[in-house]
Amino acid sequence: MILAGDDDPVEHRLAALECRVRDLEDRQAIYQLVASYGLAADGMSREGLERLWAPDGRYDTEHHIFEGAQAVGAIVEDPMHLGFVEPGCAHVMSLPHVTVTGNSAVATNYSRVYLRSGEEWRVVRVAANRWELTRDEAGLWRVDRRINRLLDGTAESRALLAQGLCIAQ
Amino acid sequence: MILAGDDDPVEHRLAALECRVRDLEDRQAIYQLVASYGLAADGMSREGLERLWAPDGRYDTEHHIFEGAQAVGAIVEDPMHLGFVEPGCAHVMSLPHVTVTGNSAVATNYSRVYLRSGEEWRVVRVAANRWELTRDEAGLWRVDRRINRLLDGTAESRALLAQGLCIAQ
Amino acid sequence: MILAGDDDPVEHRLAALECRVRDLEDRQAIYQLVASYGLAADGMSREGLERLWAPDGRYDTEHHIFEGAQAVGAIVEDPMHLGFVEPGCAHVMSLPHVTVTGNSAVATNYSRVYLRSGEEWRVVRVAANRWELTRDEAGLWRVDRRINRLLDGTAESRALLAQGLCIAQ
Repeated sequence: MILAGDDDPVEHRLAALECRVRDLEDRQAIYQLVASYGLAADGMSREGLERLWAPDGRYDTEHHIFEGAQAVGAIVEDPMHLGFVEPGCAHVMSLPHVTVTGNSAVATNYSRVYLRSGEEWRVVRVAANRWELTRDEAGLWRVDRRINRLLDGTAESRALLAQGLCIAQ
Repeated sequence: MILAGDDDPVEHRLAALECRVRDLEDRQAIYQLVASYGLAADGMSREGLERLWAPDGRYDTEHHIFEGAQAVGAIVEDPMHLGFVEPGCAHVMSLPHVTVTGNSAVATNYSRVYLRSGEEWRVVRVAANRWELTRDEAGLWRVDRRINRLLDGTAESRALLAQGLCIAQ
Repeated sequence: MILAGDDDPVEHRLAALECRVRDLEDRQAIYQLVASYGLAADGMSREGLERLWAPDGRYDTEHHIFEGAQAVGAIVEDPMHLGFVEPGCAHVMSLPHVTVTGNSAVATNYSRVYLRSGEEWRVVRVAANRWELTRDEAGLWRVDRRINRLLDGTAESRALLAQGLCIAQ
């Protein structure tokens, strides 16, 4: 048996690896969470949407603020959403930029909604997204707040993107 | 020399790390496989396409089922494909949702085909994709079956997305 | 204290893990670098753009070659860029294919520029990208050269994609 201690290089190397692997796993889990949103929304899975959010998490769009995971899950009944799903749509998330700080994280990315129109798909929403995430007691990452703003030339939508880079403004 | 055993915390920690790193590497390899498809298809690389599939793997689209890696590689001669490549096209894969179970994995994502038309690109295909993958004897992940269905409002295409989330239906 | 040596299985396993984790971290860092480009460009962050490039790195498009990180940062003043940002735009990067060789790496992916036009976004650029990266002395990955070519049917743009797969031509 090895005794761990300040002078033990094996202990140091193991502890460093555990920390680095944890960081990689966090990022991986956050990629998967972000990638799940479209699958749940376009797949009409209320449960799939609900479990991405913390029970009291929010989804803040320019149209509406959804308060709580249940409200997010109810998007599958939303007339605007159904108007996209019926002809055929895809809510596609880009690879996010992620910063992790302990049990909190911020992911920043682009979302696009492709809507079928005859033989083609029109791009009817392109938005900046800021995902504020927390690790819950079970160790799962959940959305505390997602902010979604159309990239329509407003300073607010541009600021969401730049903010993700954590550069002092 | 350290003797591994049930009571050896170093052995436990090493074994746990090896398992976690293996899982991260699997996901990484699957991301790379999925990202390779477009490069091979749009880059007109028969070899690039062939090596993604298991020798007897299938690619199942609503038009056609390609049976075996060689048939997938022959996409570079397909008239429909050439009709895209000549004016300029991009087969872009979104970040996949991935579940790994031993030597099997499922990746679920969106594909889009952008086709040049004058000064713009039209979005002529937006599809749900389910990639059923296996690790071969050499340790490489290969496609056993890829199912691709247009997101055109059909229940089948929506189900492919929701199925990826592994929520009991 | 454990003495590392050729016969020490713990040392072997630790060294192998450190190497594998380093590779995963490199890929992760490269994903983040690529994902940052759009956030900086669309977020109008000169600093965000500059720090992605090596001081003497290049950005080579079919229009122009930007020589050095400062020239890349000055894209935020470029009239063509401002013509995109004002109505609303998104420079979205796909998940890259990455090969790492020591302190060098190549990432290959697709970029798309979505430009707002009334209630929709038109896709005004779809390009193949080859990112030649180096790890600097501080251990950070930077762009030595980014080559961007429109996927407009030219053999050059197709070759950039196939080249990323490292298949002998």
